[in-house]
Amino acid sequence: MNFKNLVKEIQEFKGVSRKSSINNVISLLEESYNVSGDVVIEIGDDASAIDIGNNQVMLIAADGIWGDIMNVNPYWAGYCSVLVNVNDIAAMGGKPLAMVNIMSISNDEIYEDLLKGIKDGCLKFGVPMVGGHLHPDGEVDSLGVAIVGIAQKDKIITSFGAEVGDKVIVAIDLDGKPHEMFNLNWDTTYDKDSQLVRDQITAVQYLAEHDYIKSGKDISNPGILGTLEMLLETSKKGAIVNLEDIPRNETLGWADWLRSYPGSGFVFTADEDKCEYIREYLAKYSIEAAVVGEITDSNSLYLNYADEQAEIFNQDKNPVFIFR
Amino acid sequence: MNFKNLVKEIQEFKGVSRKSSINNVISLLEESYNVSGDVVIEIGDDASAIDIGNNQVMLIAADGIWGDIMNVNPYWAGYCSVLVNVNDIAAMGGKPLAMVNIMSISNDEIYEDLLKGIKDGCLKFGVPMVGGHLHPDGEVDSLGVAIVGIAQKDKIITSFGAEVGDKVIVAIDLDGKPHEMFNLNWDTTYDKDSQLVRDQITAVQYLAEHDYIKSGKDISNPGILGTLEMLLETSKKGAIVNLEDIPRNETLGWADWLRSYPGSGFVFTADEDKCEYIREYLAKYSIEAAVVGEITDSNSLYLNYADEQAEIFNQDKNPVFIFR
Repeated sequence: MNFKNLVKEIQEFKGVSRKSSINNVISLLEESYNVSGDVVIEIGDDASAIDIGNNQVMLIAADGIWGDIMNVNPYWAGYCSVLVNVNDIAAMGGKPLAMVNIMSISNDEIYEDLLKGIKDGCLKFGVPMVGGHLHPDGEVDSLGVAIVGIAQKDKIITSFGAEVGDKVIVAIDLDGKPHEMFNLNWDTTYDKDSQLVRDQITAVQYLAEHDYIKSGKDISNPGILGTLEMLLETSKKGAIVNLEDIPRNETLGWADWLRSYPGSGFVFTADEDKCEYIREYLAKYSIEAAVVGEITDSNSLYLNYADEQAEIFNQDKNPVFIFR
Repeated sequence: MNFKNLVKEIQEFKGVSRKSSINNVISLLEESYNVSGDVVIEIGDDASAIDIGNNQVMLIAADGIWGDIMNVNPYWAGYCSVLVNVNDIAAMGGKPLAMVNIMSISNDEIYEDLLKGIKDGCLKFGVPMVGGHLHPDGEVDSLGVAIVGIAQKDKIITSFGAEVGDKVIVAIDLDGKPHEMFNLNWDTTYDKDSQLVRDQITAVQYLAEHDYIKSGKDISNPGILGTLEMLLETSKKGAIVNLEDIPRNETLGWADWLRSYPGSGFVFTADEDKCEYIREYLAKYSIEAAVVGEITDSNSLYLNYADEQAEIFNQDKNPVFIFR
């Protein structure tokens, strides 16, 4: 393996570079973010959290699906719109409760498949789509989904909690396969028993509620290292990661694996003495968790491989998602 | 006034006819609507409600803004995306908590104004936009917003609760003016003190929590009578309404008034002995509420004017929003 090429592929991956366009939205949000006084976490996490009393927070997140995937495979677009939203709530240690959608359809032929994908996603993850807004004469095909969940206020997993010395854990369901049309979709849910898929969500919730996890994020478009970098930027920390410690399904090479969007995958940080329990607990739910490195007091995410080390991201020079 | 022409204008109003395209989404939703067992109301309301324990429900709704308004006046589009969502929660007797958005922008020039409109809406209504998803290279300009709120489980106002003999109340803030670019936007919030606007939301919540209201809905695109008809269809009831009892700002003629989207407007049903209190209470918050008719055991919404009567909508022949 050529390590330099791998580093370059990760840095130039579209899933990473596209995140930066979110900056403007963030700067808008800041001015009115806490107008009500109930928002309990800062901007920049997978979901936001609003205090509703009784030591509970309501979690809310949104994701959109546009373009190619909608037209190439609308069924999968619909299914994934559920998956990505459910994972946003899971990553916060919450219980997903319900979703709503906002749809624009120009091509009636894809409509039925899209809805069927959404429905099957709802049935798989056990989370209902309870409402929506259809734009009746859309010029394009787009699907936005928002999700709400609930969590204990003092137990949520955020991206802000990483501390120097924390172990970095990558936790991924390795029992899957690349989607036949979208090879960077590491699909682990579609053929899997619905109960096990739901248990994976609940398992993260359990670890959160029992104080095993200090910070975390679900692995999404930016891939394993891009997602870790987002967490580091939010926590204002660095990390050193050993490539070969990252759990991987070996049917995929590193370049593809590190850019994949897993059906169930998370980056966590935890105290060293909690790591073995986390590993054992998640293994029961088909999620392989391994310590891959450590949080440092720096601006850089370094990757080690054999005798080599490379700076993958630097919060000053090439951030994924710096928002302040 | 030519009553026949007025009836025709209401029936053929685009704000009414466009609602029917929502049918397909609804039929999808039904199959997976209550996969979790926590959803406490049926499909077809302004918002859905999910049981979160402690006699509380989480309310969730979504609305989208597309096309003309985005390009003609992106600032107003952003502002209204907040207004319509906040009213969805208010109409359920809930407290709005937070919003998320899903945006696609093709024209960078409108972007800044759009965001500014959203921000000003958030500050006006006291509800934060806590997250979002921006489609970085959109082909069109679209904005979807989802909102969450909270309410007491046994006190929510739904569209299902209208009963034969209930009085029909139309409650609208008459202190406003048509938006200069969108003459059917009856704007009552933009120039109004933020505290009063927020109090209007809280006032409905108060009436809900003290059992004054049996069913209700916020007046939206279909206008006063179109919105009432949606409530009737959901409750499977009819009504007889007296045109001249409907509160109106007399600077507008009936045809425009009945098709207007008010900044703060609701259709409620209530027991006769509650109506006077509702009127007096809402008057304190600049909302004029009047009994305009009565719920009947029929499929029809009849409108009376002078000696004439017309069937405006019929749930079998020309429904606004029949979904089952």
